[in-house]
Amino acid sequence: MEYKQAFSNTCDFLSKINDPGKVASYIPELGSVDPNKFGVHLTTLNGENFSHGDFNEKFSIQSIAKVLSLVLAYELEGEKLWKRVGVEPSGTAFNSLVQLEHDKGIPRNPLINSGALVVCDILVDHLQNSKQTFIEYIRKIADNHSINYNEKVAQSEKEHGYRNAALINLMKAYGNIDGNCDEVLDFYFHLCSIEMTCSELSRTFMFLVNDGVDPFTEERVISTEKSKRINTLMQLCGFYDEAGEFSFKVGIPGKSGVGGGIIAVLPEHFSVAVWSPPLNEKGNSYKGMRFLEMFNQATDSSVF
Amino acid sequence: MEYKQAFSNTCDFLSKINDPGKVASYIPELGSVDPNKFGVHLTTLNGENFSHGDFNEKFSIQSIAKVLSLVLAYELEGEKLWKRVGVEPSGTAFNSLVQLEHDKGIPRNPLINSGALVVCDILVDHLQNSKQTFIEYIRKIADNHSINYNEKVAQSEKEHGYRNAALINLMKAYGNIDGNCDEVLDFYFHLCSIEMTCSELSRTFMFLVNDGVDPFTEERVISTEKSKRINTLMQLCGFYDEAGEFSFKVGIPGKSGVGGGIIAVLPEHFSVAVWSPPLNEKGNSYKGMRFLEMFNQATDSSVF
Amino acid sequence: MEYKQAFSNTCDFLSKINDPGKVASYIPELGSVDPNKFGVHLTTLNGENFSHGDFNEKFSIQSIAKVLSLVLAYELEGEKLWKRVGVEPSGTAFNSLVQLEHDKGIPRNPLINSGALVVCDILVDHLQNSKQTFIEYIRKIADNHSINYNEKVAQSEKEHGYRNAALINLMKAYGNIDGNCDEVLDFYFHLCSIEMTCSELSRTFMFLVNDGVDPFTEERVISTEKSKRINTLMQLCGFYDEAGEFSFKVGIPGKSGVGGGIIAVLPEHFSVAVWSPPLNEKGNSYKGMRFLEMFNQATDSSVF
Amino acid sequence: MEYKQAFSNTCDFLSKINDPGKVASYIPELGSVDPNKFGVHLTTLNGENFSHGDFNEKFSIQSIAKVLSLVLAYELEGEKLWKRVGVEPSGTAFNSLVQLEHDKGIPRNPLINSGALVVCDILVDHLQNSKQTFIEYIRKIADNHSINYNEKVAQSEKEHGYRNAALINLMKAYGNIDGNCDEVLDFYFHLCSIEMTCSELSRTFMFLVNDGVDPFTEERVISTEKSKRINTLMQLCGFYDEAGEFSFKVGIPGKSGVGGGIIAVLPEHFSVAVWSPPLNEKGNSYKGMRFLEMFNQATDSSVF
Repeated sequence: MEYKQAFSNTCDFLSKINDPGKVASYIPELGSVDPNKFGVHLTTLNGENFSHGDFNEKFSIQSIAKVLSLVLAYELEGEKLWKRVGVEPSGTAFNSLVQLEHDKGIPRNPLINSGALVVCDILVDHLQNSKQTFIEYIRKIADNHSINYNEKVAQSEKEHGYRNAALINLMKAYGNIDGNCDEVLDFYFHLCSIEMTCSELSRTFMFLVNDGVDPFTEERVISTEKSKRINTLMQLCGFYDEAGEFSFKVGIPGKSGVGGGIIAVLPEHFSVAVWSPPLNEKGNSYKGMRFLEMFNQATDSSVF
Repeated sequence: MEYKQAFSNTCDFLSKINDPGKVASYIPELGSVDPNKFGVHLTTLNGENFSHGDFNEKFSIQSIAKVLSLVLAYELEGEKLWKRVGVEPSGTAFNSLVQLEHDKGIPRNPLINSGALVVCDILVDHLQNSKQTFIEYIRKIADNHSINYNEKVAQSEKEHGYRNAALINLMKAYGNIDGNCDEVLDFYFHLCSIEMTCSELSRTFMFLVNDGVDPFTEERVISTEKSKRINTLMQLCGFYDEAGEFSFKVGIPGKSGVGGGIIAVLPEHFSVAVWSPPLNEKGNSYKGMRFLEMFNQATDSSVF
Repeated sequence: MEYKQAFSNTCDFLSKINDPGKVASYIPELGSVDPNKFGVHLTTLNGENFSHGDFNEKFSIQSIAKVLSLVLAYELEGEKLWKRVGVEPSGTAFNSLVQLEHDKGIPRNPLINSGALVVCDILVDHLQNSKQTFIEYIRKIADNHSINYNEKVAQSEKEHGYRNAALINLMKAYGNIDGNCDEVLDFYFHLCSIEMTCSELSRTFMFLVNDGVDPFTEERVISTEKSKRINTLMQLCGFYDEAGEFSFKVGIPGKSGVGGGIIAVLPEHFSVAVWSPPLNEKGNSYKGMRFLEMFNQATDSSVF
Repeated sequence: MEYKQAFSNTCDFLSKINDPGKVASYIPELGSVDPNKFGVHLTTLNGENFSHGDFNEKFSIQSIAKVLSLVLAYELEGEKLWKRVGVEPSGTAFNSLVQLEHDKGIPRNPLINSGALVVCDILVDHLQNSKQTFIEYIRKIADNHSINYNEKVAQSEKEHGYRNAALINLMKAYGNIDGNCDEVLDFYFHLCSIEMTCSELSRTFMFLVNDGVDPFTEERVISTEKSKRINTLMQLCGFYDEAGEFSFKVGIPGKSGVGGGIIAVLPEHFSVAVWSPPLNEKGNSYKGMRFLEMFNQATDSSVF
């Protein structure tokens, strides 16, 4: 089926279903979001755009931002990054300390919390005025100067961030954190607080559809090889311990956030952002997962 | 680079390197294999064939056969198969009981030992004269009537198969094995004893290059959707706890065996079988991994 | 308070309470036992006896027998026994494979299932006609020729013993089982099927009250040092993952069985056997635990 | 054998052996201690004292102090303390996060680091000017006003205390820490920095020999029942994952510290403190363990 028809059919269908998911409530800023919000935006490599519902409303992209911090850290560190963080699926919940202890402070991959903290440690170390420099980097990739942190969310995350504090202190004990724990945590909580709309998010990730080059500005963000590797990591590790299930049903790389957003890319074809706050039992947007499953099946979109 | 040139370059290079790997020695039949054996065979969708070295010599395909038993069980059971075995990467070594106990007898995926045992239980249940029926099924897919079990290997596996006996008994305790443990183990040990040459192996897996249809006989082995899902599982789970590393560097679905064989497929392009007995620390063929990494990089072969 | 008064008070009190426990039902022979059975027998070092209720009725002593098999194996092997089994509390459920895998096939202690299987392997290796020889050994310690296995229970245990089969096969894989797995399991299931009355059980364990010497026949069963060590093991490991709770509240060495029996000894003072089939959540007799807690508090009985 | 003779023989023997242990070096204040220091002091209930070597030199009692903080917290909280910390042996290393995560933030027992942190949280909550009040409490039990924290050690512990920071933050995430993490850690690091001589340490623990009453001042420190329970906890949990080994060979309650000190008590008979900095592989004083094993065997000292 054509993208246009499949997009429209899927959005229509999902607009009407009963959503069994639950909005994340560990911080009030997420808990108070309207559970009926539902936005989708798909951007194709040849410049077509399809959008639905609340696609133009900012939301907290949360862990989706971990892909962007990884992109910058990978550029800055190169392959020696992988001495400090693995490239294996975690097989356990996203914030588990068990595996981190078993692996002596080396996180399984950069898209789980512990791995993202190591990535933040690298960015804090490399960047002058790290938070400001990083958001400007995001704005450049996004080709959009309005993108910003939400300070209130960042502050609230910090106040409820004891498990992340446990993770970073454990890695510090193993010698895998160079910087000051509080400073790195502050950067991390800001990273998670970045807000985008579905259309901004879909636009931002277009470089991963196009082997590392922004197809509209034609600026290279990362090398072709690194772009493929980022996609590999999203395919294997983008959905915590539902990564296999997602790959199995959706068949393309993606990353979810606890705010209800999901980004997914089909290399050489499209990038799509979905936002619907209620989460399934694994912590991924219920409708977001359903959208991708249905749309990709209808359009035969799969990397396999 | 063209396949022909890349194939030739990579084989040449690897023929000369010093191999730090170690041949599996837990059974004498594997331990006595010549470590210098090195064969490669690549088959493209449009019928080209490239071969090197010992590509025409039979070897024990071991765990690679788990993909084929899965294909048949998936056909027989359909989606209810996934109630008894997961589709998530394991995150731990291939024969770990820890995760199996944590998951109450439901194996993480069908390509680790425990999952393959569940698949065998299903086949033993469905098939009359199960071992004979199964090898005939393989011969049909392979379009080759010479393919067979190696009874001596099967017997030797059984004599050293205490860990697999532990796995199946644990699953039986959790109610996830219907048949008689000894009978299922016997089927499993025969499955692991199947022998093929690189060219037979590469030929056999062509249906996964072509959305489930054998491109030469034009017979459908499985549905398009199931074919993609088998590829997904190989991508995520084909290399035990090196699955991420493999995906990261090689970027296409594959499956390794302890006999030193690896099969890998690039959907719509090619299937390639490599055989070199010395294994790296994770239990995958050292040269096999190197071949795929080099060849795929040279030819820009990746699903991402 | 005097033993007599405390014994009578405690039995009276417990006869009237509502028992929230549940009878073990994994085999029909245990599941069909009358949950209202309640027997107690206490034997003092100077020959006094106190008894209550169903103290003269045979029941399945189950894991309590593991102490007796340990006593014989310790005599036969001496201190080299501890190369094959540890002396540490397990910290996890009695039949966990996780710890056994972590510890590479060396069970934490001889009173959990895996450790008892190693002890059985030793006895099968040492004893001619092992089952017969062993029951005669028990009869001698018990000074009672009526003690026997219950063949029906042993058979039923075997039919439901997949987890124990998993444990022994895992240890065999690690090289910590010398004999044939099926033969050792058969011995183990017979061991667990031994039946005694409360008075027989209390009588049998008197040698552990008296530094290894039967106080009535004056025959030495084991050395003083070994007797103390057996008591230490019961104190630390006798109640699975409730060992600490038991020590904390009861303060003397003991061992429970899934049939609802508990034996406990206060060195130099008394041995007491309680039987009440309903088990608490940790798998120990609810009333048995309550009896020991109340009686020991009333009589200030504690090794500490 | 009489205490006097056994004490003398054991000290003589150990003075001459080659010590294979290693002094703790994670903070410079411990690493720079003379490894040849060796002191012992034994105090009997009837007032006899035996001493050897460096018995009159202050050393860092480290984790031994956890028994004293537990005594006070138990007095202040009563039995509801056990809702926040267990009474089971840990079965894993003293600072493991794995078990803490498995048990959802409830430490296994109050003598491992996590449990001691919960105890400190309770003391910080209960006590005005907590550090000062606590050290005065210790001085009273010790009947000695010279006892104090070592501020340099406390500071150094803090600078290397990332794993403890991980533990407390994880428990805070589970809701099992009421206070401010930094404040509780500060109290904890001071607790670990307390210094005593062997004779002071032996004297301080005499109330646990005498059912909770200081035998010399005749002041009650805790109730008889609580005194027995503290002894039970030392017996089961005093030596991390060597608790079973210690109980098995030594047979009396005790607690070790990473500074090379060990306290052990035989209820109704004696309290003994040993100090020798080199530690065995499990982190307990090599000579300290040997002393207790030899002395107790010679004098037939055991609670069993």
